[in-house]
Amino acid sequence: MSDMSGDFDAVLDGYSRAARDALAGYVSAREPSRYLYEPMRRCTLGPGKSLRPALCLAACEAFGGSRGDAMASAVGVELLHAAFLIHDDIEDGSERRRGRPALHIELGTAIALNTGDALAVLAQRPLLDNVDRLGSRMARTVLTEFQVAMERTVEGQAVELGWRHDQVVDLTPPDYLDMILHKTCAYTTILPLRVGALIGSWGDADLEAIARFGFALGAAFQIRDDVLDLVSSDTSYGKNALGDIWEGKRTLALIHLMRTVSDEDRQTVMEFFTRPSVARSGGGARRIRVLMDSYGSVDFACDYGSRMAAEAVAAFDEAFGDCPPSPAFVFLRGVVPFMIERVA
Amino acid sequence: MSDMSGDFDAVLDGYSRAARDALAGYVSAREPSRYLYEPMRRCTLGPGKSLRPALCLAACEAFGGSRGDAMASAVGVELLHAAFLIHDDIEDGSERRRGRPALHIELGTAIALNTGDALAVLAQRPLLDNVDRLGSRMARTVLTEFQVAMERTVEGQAVELGWRHDQVVDLTPPDYLDMILHKTCAYTTILPLRVGALIGSWGDADLEAIARFGFALGAAFQIRDDVLDLVSSDTSYGKNALGDIWEGKRTLALIHLMRTVSDEDRQTVMEFFTRPSVARSGGGARRIRVLMDSYGSVDFACDYGSRMAAEAVAAFDEAFGDCPPSPAFVFLRGVVPFMIERVA
Repeated sequence: MSDMSGDFDAVLDGYSRAARDALAGYVSAREPSRYLYEPMRRCTLGPGKSLRPALCLAACEAFGGSRGDAMASAVGVELLHAAFLIHDDIEDGSERRRGRPALHIELGTAIALNTGDALAVLAQRPLLDNVDRLGSRMARTVLTEFQVAMERTVEGQAVELGWRHDQVVDLTPPDYLDMILHKTCAYTTILPLRVGALIGSWGDADLEAIARFGFALGAAFQIRDDVLDLVSSDTSYGKNALGDIWEGKRTLALIHLMRTVSDEDRQTVMEFFTRPSVARSGGGARRIRVLMDSYGSVDFACDYGSRMAAEAVAAFDEAFGDCPPSPAFVFLRGVVPFMIERVA
Repeated sequence: MSDMSGDFDAVLDGYSRAARDALAGYVSAREPSRYLYEPMRRCTLGPGKSLRPALCLAACEAFGGSRGDAMASAVGVELLHAAFLIHDDIEDGSERRRGRPALHIELGTAIALNTGDALAVLAQRPLLDNVDRLGSRMARTVLTEFQVAMERTVEGQAVELGWRHDQVVDLTPPDYLDMILHKTCAYTTILPLRVGALIGSWGDADLEAIARFGFALGAAFQIRDDVLDLVSSDTSYGKNALGDIWEGKRTLALIHLMRTVSDEDRQTVMEFFTRPSVARSGGGARRIRVLMDSYGSVDFACDYGSRMAAEAVAAFDEAFGDCPPSPAFVFLRGVVPFMIERVA
């Protein structure tokens, strides 16, 4: 098992480095530097797992394609992700990212917002370059895959922001799943897997099966992310401690809590969330965290995440079952346990 | 002359309606509605001159193309413009837009930011649809034109935001022109004119000449916009009174003022700009406005705008001189005086 995960890490590292090298060519140092290209470089070339590019490259290789054929698309996914993170942090009022102050804390909202725009714009460049390597037809198909994923992402974001704006709390796990299907899975897992498989199989892969795997994988990933936010200390995780509670995120744990809590404890929770975020106290966030333990809400989220991971394992066989054995195939099969076991 | 401008208005109105109808097909009412598609519709289907689509459609027709061939691109430009306006208003802290509260004032920064992202994403859709009507090669060329213009826009925005961030005031008119070439002209005039001409001429038009016309026209437009901000009252113009001064925008008038002002008056100006924007007073903004009159800074900007308009007239002949007479040709020739004479 530890050998397996050693292999997994090495393969991930290989994908990560290759994608980062390709990405560096798109965010070269140039003017205007200080308030545009330098922050763009910091947000894309700094430490990170490059999981999304790895999914794209591995899916391409698993279907017999060459890594280089999917590289530009992998870079596009990563640039898009960097753009979304910056805008997310502004929208959520998050103060830290990857162990440092968030970009809008460092440079102000205006410059951070524009840097996010610039990364989203730049994400289209490698997709245009696809024409030269993959031809017009495939390049257009890939552009359309990106288009659909980006539209889903902003829709999911609008749903989540709407919940917070209207202080909606009577939500169900299916509401949550539908929201993260749009907001997270569409671009984090489904997009890179579909695009990689599409390129690698030259259109032959069963993209619906790939999307089902991507959804289960992405859901397991997001639920794990939410749980890590609840159980990690600030230093190991690189974000605000209990940041999701502070920001009022409708996570599975919070949704479970609101569905099971006593009237008295519900008052405590509502009292916290109806305050403007600047008036929320650390003590209030910690009280909600304690309530989540009392009501088994964290365990509920963990169990839910495990069920999604089990679904992902089953969906993997349908999506990639016909692929011949390869390091890429083994890597993709290993992504599910990696998602669930990761601690940061 | 009044007949001419009556014709001009009618032609503009025709382009405007046609573009708006086509645009409506892209922002249909759907879910999530309240915090996404409804605001997107309000920001794109409300009253407005649709000048950018008109430039695109007219350039296409002037070169003998059919209006429908450029329609999707015209819609793309307008969607992009709507996206930029929302993000600009957040970045500038502008409170009003088109006579109503800016979107981030109405719905909060988070939802407004995401709505802007969604409009920028949606702007790519009609460009992908170009493939069916114009073929892969032309569609790719148009996508690349958009790509270049969007990259220039975020660069120009970064330069301007950097000036404000660092309180840079020792600027020259060429600094200003270079900034608006990127920030405004690239997507407001150069992009729609080039794309329209490209499609209408099937690649034969002299795009460099078109770009020179677009730059002069866009500069005249932006300078007029800046002057209107200084001379208009809130109600007629639909933005904050003296909004650019409040926001610390480095306009030509401000740049002229800082280059000619006495040391004592310079203190007054700097004292205003070094305050955080929330601590700036209406009295301070009005004092700067009075100084601009004393030092002839508004006249300087007006004269500069007139010179750019004269350049645009000369550049028009180079860009469109070989086109046969047509209503589109007459319309484009009339855009320069329209830009300079407009009062809103």
